[in-house]
Amino acid sequence: MCGIFAYLNHLTPKTRLEILELLIKGLKRLEYRGYDSAGVGIDGASSGSQISLVKSTGKVKLLEDKIHSLKDDLNFDGVHTVHVGIAHTRWATHGAPSDINCHPHRSGEKNEFVVVHNGIITNYKDIKQFLETKGHKFESDTDTEIIAKLVKHIRSQNPKDSFRQLVEKAIAQLEGAFACVFKSSLFPGECVATRRGSPLLVGIKTESALESDHIPVQYTADEDPSHPRHGTEIDGSPAPRKKTSAMFRMDPDHTEEIRVSDEDSVEYFFASDASAIIEHTNRVIFLEDDDVAACKQGVLSIHRMIREGAAPDVSREITTLKMEIQQIMKGNYSSFMQKEIFEQPESVVNTMRGRINYELEQVTLGGIKSYVPEIRRCRRLLMIGCGTSYHSAIATRQLLEELTELPVMIDLASDFLDRNTPIFRDDVCFFISQSGETADTLSALRYCKSRGALIIGITNTVGSTICRESHCGVHINAGPEIGVASTKAYTSQILSLTMFALVMAEDRISLQPRRSEIIQGLKALPDMIRQVLDQDQKVLEIAKKLYEKRSLLIMGRGFNYATCLEGALKVKELTYMHSEGIQAGELKHGPLALVDSEVPIIMIVMRDHVFSKCMNALQQVTARDGRPILICEAGDMETAKCGMEYLEVPKSVDALQGILTVIPMQLLSYHLAVLRGCNVDCPRNLAKSVTVE
Amino acid sequence: MCGIFAYLNHLTPKTRLEILELLIKGLKRLEYRGYDSAGVGIDGASSGSQISLVKSTGKVKLLEDKIHSLKDDLNFDGVHTVHVGIAHTRWATHGAPSDINCHPHRSGEKNEFVVVHNGIITNYKDIKQFLETKGHKFESDTDTEIIAKLVKHIRSQNPKDSFRQLVEKAIAQLEGAFACVFKSSLFPGECVATRRGSPLLVGIKTESALESDHIPVQYTADEDPSHPRHGTEIDGSPAPRKKTSAMFRMDPDHTEEIRVSDEDSVEYFFASDASAIIEHTNRVIFLEDDDVAACKQGVLSIHRMIREGAAPDVSREITTLKMEIQQIMKGNYSSFMQKEIFEQPESVVNTMRGRINYELEQVTLGGIKSYVPEIRRCRRLLMIGCGTSYHSAIATRQLLEELTELPVMIDLASDFLDRNTPIFRDDVCFFISQSGETADTLSALRYCKSRGALIIGITNTVGSTICRESHCGVHINAGPEIGVASTKAYTSQILSLTMFALVMAEDRISLQPRRSEIIQGLKALPDMIRQVLDQDQKVLEIAKKLYEKRSLLIMGRGFNYATCLEGALKVKELTYMHSEGIQAGELKHGPLALVDSEVPIIMIVMRDHVFSKCMNALQQVTARDGRPILICEAGDMETAKCGMEYLEVPKSVDALQGILTVIPMQLLSYHLAVLRGCNVDCPRNLAKSVTVE
Repeated sequence: MCGIFAYLNHLTPKTRLEILELLIKGLKRLEYRGYDSAGVGIDGASSGSQISLVKSTGKVKLLEDKIHSLKDDLNFDGVHTVHVGIAHTRWATHGAPSDINCHPHRSGEKNEFVVVHNGIITNYKDIKQFLETKGHKFESDTDTEIIAKLVKHIRSQNPKDSFRQLVEKAIAQLEGAFACVFKSSLFPGECVATRRGSPLLVGIKTESALESDHIPVQYTADEDPSHPRHGTEIDGSPAPRKKTSAMFRMDPDHTEEIRVSDEDSVEYFFASDASAIIEHTNRVIFLEDDDVAACKQGVLSIHRMIREGAAPDVSREITTLKMEIQQIMKGNYSSFMQKEIFEQPESVVNTMRGRINYELEQVTLGGIKSYVPEIRRCRRLLMIGCGTSYHSAIATRQLLEELTELPVMIDLASDFLDRNTPIFRDDVCFFISQSGETADTLSALRYCKSRGALIIGITNTVGSTICRESHCGVHINAGPEIGVASTKAYTSQILSLTMFALVMAEDRISLQPRRSEIIQGLKALPDMIRQVLDQDQKVLEIAKKLYEKRSLLIMGRGFNYATCLEGALKVKELTYMHSEGIQAGELKHGPLALVDSEVPIIMIVMRDHVFSKCMNALQQVTARDGRPILICEAGDMETAKCGMEYLEVPKSVDALQGILTVIPMQLLSYHLAVLRGCNVDCPRNLAKSVTVE
Repeated sequence: MCGIFAYLNHLTPKTRLEILELLIKGLKRLEYRGYDSAGVGIDGASSGSQISLVKSTGKVKLLEDKIHSLKDDLNFDGVHTVHVGIAHTRWATHGAPSDINCHPHRSGEKNEFVVVHNGIITNYKDIKQFLETKGHKFESDTDTEIIAKLVKHIRSQNPKDSFRQLVEKAIAQLEGAFACVFKSSLFPGECVATRRGSPLLVGIKTESALESDHIPVQYTADEDPSHPRHGTEIDGSPAPRKKTSAMFRMDPDHTEEIRVSDEDSVEYFFASDASAIIEHTNRVIFLEDDDVAACKQGVLSIHRMIREGAAPDVSREITTLKMEIQQIMKGNYSSFMQKEIFEQPESVVNTMRGRINYELEQVTLGGIKSYVPEIRRCRRLLMIGCGTSYHSAIATRQLLEELTELPVMIDLASDFLDRNTPIFRDDVCFFISQSGETADTLSALRYCKSRGALIIGITNTVGSTICRESHCGVHINAGPEIGVASTKAYTSQILSLTMFALVMAEDRISLQPRRSEIIQGLKALPDMIRQVLDQDQKVLEIAKKLYEKRSLLIMGRGFNYATCLEGALKVKELTYMHSEGIQAGELKHGPLALVDSEVPIIMIVMRDHVFSKCMNALQQVTARDGRPILICEAGDMETAKCGMEYLEVPKSVDALQGILTVIPMQLLSYHLAVLRGCNVDCPRNLAKSVTVE
């Protein structure tokens, strides 16, 4: 869950200050991935000296301050024509947040090899034990440190190996998920990056235009360096000749080493995601699992070990990103989360744009269009996600059941994997993830794919791993979401799945009135969201009454059950209050024992098909002296007066109501967090994108 | 959720004290169903006077004290040869617990009609409004009061109707769920009882042996009293001649009124369940929905309105109960719940008794045997329940998926109903309910049955509504469970579903090693449960450190995820601490924000297939300063030392481990409740059996 950033400048002279500022800026963009500690690794101040590591616990700002306080030691004015800098912002998994556990980690006191790492090495204890028997002394509690020391150990066994070969041998020993970037004082000006499970991409910036938009992949069959590395046979057939990669003006027939002449300047950026790169270049390569990208003398090459049974990819595409830097700025809001809550009238429009014709009542989802007949023939639908994404599945399950008349299963990705759930060739599986990189969701995707199911990705991030590995999918187009607590992505996920349900029902005459009602409801949605947002002040007043409480219960059922779970998750994430979403029908089976005049209770009571059941629950709560705050329909004073306080939301179609009822909960969690003095965008212990299991 | 008890003595002289004591004793047996307030209704002290009502808020003991304080007014020594007494213990739904809301409720100041009621009348507001226009003044906030006043109103329109006819007309106006018993000063010595949705049974005690074990059902086609009531045509064919019911020595050819000679003494008991009746008689009739049972001059007759499309039942069976009174006594334990926790080594044996042959590794479930081929051909399995029963579905889902290789869906009954979930003829649906009367589960059963699915009941109560309405089923045989918080029923539910999975896999060669492992695991289970119970003192020590906390998080995954949910529910129910079960894989998606050095955390870490993932979660918690209490495998000191405290449970087969890990949680919730001064058997706001939605 950490953020990795690295910068390599080749024949583009930069002062050491420029390099450090560039690294810090990159980290700041990635801070949403973790902010327990941060660190950078650059060349030592005097040439030939050890690599310098600067680390600090806390947010990137503290690292920045520390670097400036070390101005003299770091020789800000020195210039490097060729240089590699690596940087890291941490979200602690193994070992508490502390200076000692900060990245980069190193191979030993001389900093021969330093590494930044995002992920978890599951077999680190075994490797640590082995390395300790070889005399290595460990400084930290992290899993990462073993990587650096392992590379050094392999180097001692294979002194002639290239930097890239050393890394290849090291990662062959690792289990778990990782994205790593390595720097070494033994290989100045070189950089090696690799990933398995965690995301990593490479940005390329050159003065000249790129001559090719692909980089070929080089295959390595064997770890033993005495074996020939090129021309190895794959599956009995000769390896493709076009296996060497290089810069973009390479001669395609030239298959051996490519030399770059001295005037070819180039800069490379390695990052956990595009937001850290986009301000420098929009030309990027998304690395695949087990790719090893090496930069040497300004040449980028991509290598892979051959794995049995895997069909070799021939090349990696250089993608042109269209994300704009303004999109990731905070604007006039106090936090990204607040900005994203208030963006929802626009973000839902973006989700629907070009997909719905309100006059003809047609819905088109380009990304799945050609798969619709196959989906209609399936035996069941599965929706899989984690956290907020899972809640969007709960929110839309009933509508999918109604409009597809298929069984719809929903599962937490982690529980789905734990259970080894039976999956069949005629299943259609949805994988929902804002980042498209959520590790559990991705593992579940691969599990289902290997069993022959049809895979549909629902993500917010073009080019993400889930995007790439799905057969088809829907981009929710909510725009970049920076706040760790998901808001606009949730409403857009619900909308995307709703549109899918509408597509599935387009050929059913009996369902046309329902479809029509929903499509017209969608049209009115942005205005209704604005009306809900207008109640921000009233939400703030309620927050002022609640913010010192320790617990919060949120109750509802039917289409609004998901709002309870999602609202409780928001409050938990942002305010550290113990909040829980409760299905109102389960009240008497236990949770009612919690109810008294002290515990704050929020109940969602809409005049839909479960209204009378919700009113029963409300009666039960008030009979126990509970003093509920109601979220009810605008104008429904009869219901409103049953609560101690109330918030009104406009009435929409029942299946869309959850999009409106969740917004007061988003606002409430935001205000509670501010009142409690919590950091809204960076809640303690959490990171935006969960790329380890 | 209330408890109803009524007693009618015909030609069996009793003092008024005897009658009152009998009513109080009945209420005490039913107290687990509710204990907010209690009340009785008996004839006035001087003959011909109004009915006397005595009511008290709080537990039945308080009512008892009040009755004794009214000794003189109540004329304890007076003797009734024929008398009707009704009694009620309340669990509040509409209107707070208070004297004014106590049952019995009455038709007016003269107590012409009094009624006790269990259930919820959903259209009570409309009826109340109507009756108010007719001049009726309401005294309470309850839905029940309208029933008594409605009967009085109907009487004013139909002065010649019998007591039974008045009740029939009244319930035709009611919507919702109810079981009611009526008494009237206008019909002395008569009693009318009816039910729809809520349970009600009639116990019969006579000196002489019963001559028949059936009571015929009388059908009424029309409400208009001017129409003939007998010989009505049903579906165009003449009504069965044998339509009059009476006492058991009736002449089968005599179809008109049956007169009972003066020397026929008989006693009738009406109760919400058999535990209140068993000490008087073991001969009972379970009333069906819409039955109206009337007692007049010592004769019991059962009547029904003819409903379109329903095939008329010809008679109601008189069942002989085998439950023993000792089974429902508390023994040496401080509470029923504690007794039931410690009974588990025996109750699991009872669940398996006669069903498993450990030598031949055969499992036989008599209740579903003939349906197994049909179940094997199904398209999917659904498990539906509420509260603890739902958790037993979660606990066994993975094993069912593994051994049946079918898709297994689980649903909360209330959410299942809210969603109008699509159900198909080739679905097999399990309905899990300890009492067999849970209203939501029962409604879900009827929903699935009407769509042609195969219905399997998993209950602990022979003769319960779910039992009777299922196609087939498994009795969990855990014995009566009195403690409101379910303990031994949960483990027996898991066992029953596990045995079902074993039955499903008996013909699969590849699954035999797994079956064998589980069957041998089952054999060892009772001893292992004893080993867990031996740690009671250690659990108490931990409880002493936790009992003043406000929140509790319980984390785990895989086969032990259900234990987290169930453990959290137990703590919630009994201690009113806000506890929550969290899937450990979801930690990083939000709940980790709650973790600090203060919040108590319990983690379940077994060396099963999710061990390394659980250890990751544990690392994350400790990296955030969390101080988890571990439930781990006996002897696994390496894991145990990662926690602040630990509890050991013996290692069983992974799929059975949840039965062992839940027991420390049951013990913990018990000790926490005692330390916090809570009533273990009667948690506030809750009742044992949830017979309303």
